Amino acid sequence: MKTAVYRKEHFNAAHRLHNPAWDDEKNSRVFGKCNNPNYHGHNYELIVKLIGEIDTETGYVYDMKELSDLIREHVISKFDHKNLNLDVPHFKNLNPTAENIAIVIYQLLREQIGADIDLKVILYETPRNYVEYPV
Amino acid sequence: MKTAVYRKEHFNAAHRLHNPAWDDEKNSRVFGKCNNPNYHGHNYELIVKLIGEIDTETGYVYDMKELSDLIREHVISKFDHKNLNLDVPHFKNLNPTAENIAIVIYQLLREQIGADIDLKVILYETPRNYVEYPV
Amino acid sequence: MKTAVYRKEHFNAAHRLHNPAWDDEKNSRVFGKCNNPNYHGHNYELIVKLIGEIDTETGYVYDMKELSDLIREHVISKFDHKNLNLDVPHFKNLNPTAENIAIVIYQLLREQIGADIDLKVILYETPRNYVEYPV
Amino acid sequence: MKTAVYRKEHFNAAHRLHNPAWDDEKNSRVFGKCNNPNYHGHNYELIVKLIGEIDTETGYVYDMKELSDLIREHVISKFDHKNLNLDVPHFKNLNPTAENIAIVIYQLLREQIGADIDLKVILYETPRNYVEYPV
Amino acid sequence: MKTAVYRKEHFNAAHRLHNPAWDDEKNSRVFGKCNNPNYHGHNYELIVKLIGEIDTETGYVYDMKELSDLIREHVISKFDHKNLNLDVPHFKNLNPTAENIAIVIYQLLREQIGADIDLKVILYETPRNYVEYPV
Amino acid sequence: MKTAVYRKEHFNAAHRLHNPAWDDEKNSRVFGKCNNPNYHGHNYELIVKLIGEIDTETGYVYDMKELSDLIREHVISKFDHKNLNLDVPHFKNLNPTAENIAIVIYQLLREQIGADIDLKVILYETPRNYVEYPV
Repeated sequence: MKTAVYRKEHFNAAHRLHNPAWDDEKNSRVFGKCNNPNYHGHNYELIVKLIGEIDTETGYVYDMKELSDLIREHVISKFDHKNLNLDVPHFKNLNPTAENIAIVIYQLLREQIGADIDLKVILYETPRNYVEYPV
Repeated sequence: MKTAVYRKEHFNAAHRLHNPAWDDEKNSRVFGKCNNPNYHGHNYELIVKLIGEIDTETGYVYDMKELSDLIREHVISKFDHKNLNLDVPHFKNLNPTAENIAIVIYQLLREQIGADIDLKVILYETPRNYVEYPV
Repeated sequence: MKTAVYRKEHFNAAHRLHNPAWDDEKNSRVFGKCNNPNYHGHNYELIVKLIGEIDTETGYVYDMKELSDLIREHVISKFDHKNLNLDVPHFKNLNPTAENIAIVIYQLLREQIGADIDLKVILYETPRNYVEYPV
Repeated sequence: MKTAVYRKEHFNAAHRLHNPAWDDEKNSRVFGKCNNPNYHGHNYELIVKLIGEIDTETGYVYDMKELSDLIREHVISKFDHKNLNLDVPHFKNLNPTAENIAIVIYQLLREQIGADIDLKVILYETPRNYVEYPV
Repeated sequence: MKTAVYRKEHFNAAHRLHNPAWDDEKNSRVFGKCNNPNYHGHNYELIVKLIGEIDTETGYVYDMKELSDLIREHVISKFDHKNLNLDVPHFKNLNPTAENIAIVIYQLLREQIGADIDLKVILYETPRNYVEYPV
Repeated sequence: MKTAVYRKEHFNAAHRLHNPAWDDEKNSRVFGKCNNPNYHGHNYELIVKLIGEIDTETGYVYDMKELSDLIREHVISKFDHKNLNLDVPHFKNLNPTAENIAIVIYQLLREQIGADIDLKVILYETPRNYVEYPV
C-alpha cells in the first residue's frame, strides 16, 4: 500500500482576476472585488502532496528537506512577494485564480519529481478558500 | 484532470443525541454526555468541496462568492444559532450526529449544484472530531 | 521578573442569552439570534493564565498537570456537555455571556490557587469572539 | 476589575513598502522584497480588543454584533480587496507597514467607540508577523 | 455511499533517524539534523480516519469516545513522552520516520477495528510535515 | 503610544525534566512522564515580542527580517534538532522546563537588541501549554 507525504510552504503575492476578452462591466460583474485594477493580495499557503512507496533504506517516501528545497527553488522564489499578473510569466495569458495557480505549480514541480511519485497540489488562497489539483 | 475547490463556513448550534426507540438507560449508556436532555452545543465548521472542470473563461471550477451565498442561504440560515433537534425539521426523526448532519447538508446543497460537479461535505463538530460525506 | 504559564482546555455547551427583566421583544432586539428560546451552543476554548515566580527546585511556576486537573475538576466537569442556563447553578440568575462565564470560571479557580499566583481567564466562545478577565 | 472582549475580522489587500524620500537603491536595501514596485499582498487578520466594565443588564462589555458591524463599515469596506498604497487615502503619505496600518485602524475605530472603553488593535500581516497598537 | 469519521489525538516523543547499515558519515549526510545521536523530538498530531456505513440506530459510523479510548490504549500509552528508538519495541529495527510511525500505528489499530471499517492514519510530525497511510 | 511587533519561529527538540538533587522516586513523582530518562520531545513554537517606538523613516518598530535572522542565529541554530539537556550548555545545570527555556531565550536575545526596545518571549511547548517571560 502506498503512503503520502505532505510539505507545507507559503508565499505572499498580489493578483487581479481579469479576462481581457471581456469589457470592464462584465469583468466587474463576474469577478467583483477581485477585479480591482490596482490589485489585492493574499498569504498563499501551499501544500505539496507526494504519493509513493517507502524506500526501505531511508524510511522515506521522499526527503522532506529535498522537497522543501525544490518548492523554494521552483515555486516560492518565483511567486513570493510578486505581482502574479505582472511579474510571473505563466500568468501573462492565464487568469491567476487559485485553480490556475495550483495547476502552474503542479506543472513546475511535476518536471522535478520522478514519474514513480504521484503529485498533488493544495493551495489555500485564504483560510476559507482553497483548491486541490489534480483530484 | 479535475480540480477541487473548497469553501469553509461555520454555524453554532445546540443538539442532543437520542434514539426514541430506546429507554433512557440505553440512551445514556450509548450516547453518554451527548444524551443530556437539556442539550449541549458546538461551533460547527463546515467545508464544502466541489470537484469539476475549470471554466476556461473564468478560471473557476465554481464562483466561491456564489458557493458561499448558496451555503448561507440553504444551510447556515437554517442551522445557525438553532437547536438542531427542535428547530430544524430534518432532525425531527433523525439523530443529529455529525454524520447525519453532514448528509442533510449534502442533500440540501446537492439540489443547488449542477450534476457536472461532484460534491462532498466535511463537517467539524469539534477541532478533534469531524466527518466527511460521501467518501 | 515574573513569568506567566498558560493551560488550554475545552468544553462544549448550550446556552441562551436572555434578561428576564425585559419582554420578549426587547430580548430579541438586544440579543438577536443568541436569544433563541431553544438554545444554541459552542465549543468553548478555555485558557487559564497563572503569573508567579519560578520555583527553583522544579523550574515551574505551576505544575501544568496539576493545573489541568484543577480545571477539569472545578470547571470542565460542571460545564462540559451541559446547558449553561439550566444545568449550571451559577447562571440561574446570571446571563451566560462569554464575559460572565469567564468571571464564574475565574471565581471557581481563584479559590483553588494560592494568593501568590495571579490568575487570568481567557475564553473563546468562537474562534472570532473571545474575552479575558480580569485585564 | 475590567474585562476585555476581542473580535476577529479579516481583509485581503496589496501593498508595497517604500519611502519616497529615499532613492531606489536604499528602498530596495531597507525593504527588500517588500519594495517590489508591482506590489505583493496579504490576508490580514484583524483583532479588535475593547476593555471596559460589563453592563449588568446585558452581561456585555460591548455587543459583538455591533462591533463587527463597526469594523466592517469603517475598516473592512475601505481596505478589503484594495491596494493600500493606491486605493486607501490614509496611506498616500504613510508607508503601509503593519505598524502603520494598525495605527490607522485604531484611529478609524477610536472615533466610533465611547471614551469609557479602551481600544487596542492587533493585526496579523502573516501568521508569523503581527503587531499590536497601542501597548 | 460511505461516510468517513476522523478523530484527532496527540503525543510527544523523542526520536532519531538512523540506518545502522550505514556509517556515520552517510547517516549524517542523508538524515542531516534528524540524525543527532542525542535525539530531538516532536509534538505528533495523530488523526485516525475510519470509513464505513452509518449505523441507523446510533447515527454513528463509529463511537468517537470508543475510538478515542482505543487510540489512547493502543497508541498514546505506548508512544507518549517516550523515546521512539529506545522505548518502543516496534522501532528496534525500524527507522522512526513519520512514514514508518504511521504504518506502525495503522497496524496497532487495524487489529482493534472490525474488517467492515476502512482505516487510514494521518500523522503530523510538525505543522509543516505530515504523512498519510495508506493512500 | 508604543507599538509591539511579534515574530514567530519554531524549533524541534528533545528534553527531560529532572532535578539531580532529588532521588529517582521524587523525580518521578514530581515530573511524571516528563522525567523519562530516555527523553521525549516537542515542536516548540517561539514568539518574540518587541515593544518600542515606530521609526518614522521606515514605519517599523523593528525590521522583521532582521529579527528573524537574529532569532535564527542566536536561538534556533543552538536549539533546533537538539537534546536540550545534553546539547545546549545553558541547561547543564538548569532544568529545561518551558519557563526556563523562555528565560534562556530572553537572555540570548536581550544582548542583541537595543535597550530602547522592550523584549518578551512567548514559548509554546505544546498547543495546550505555553509560557511568557517576563510578564
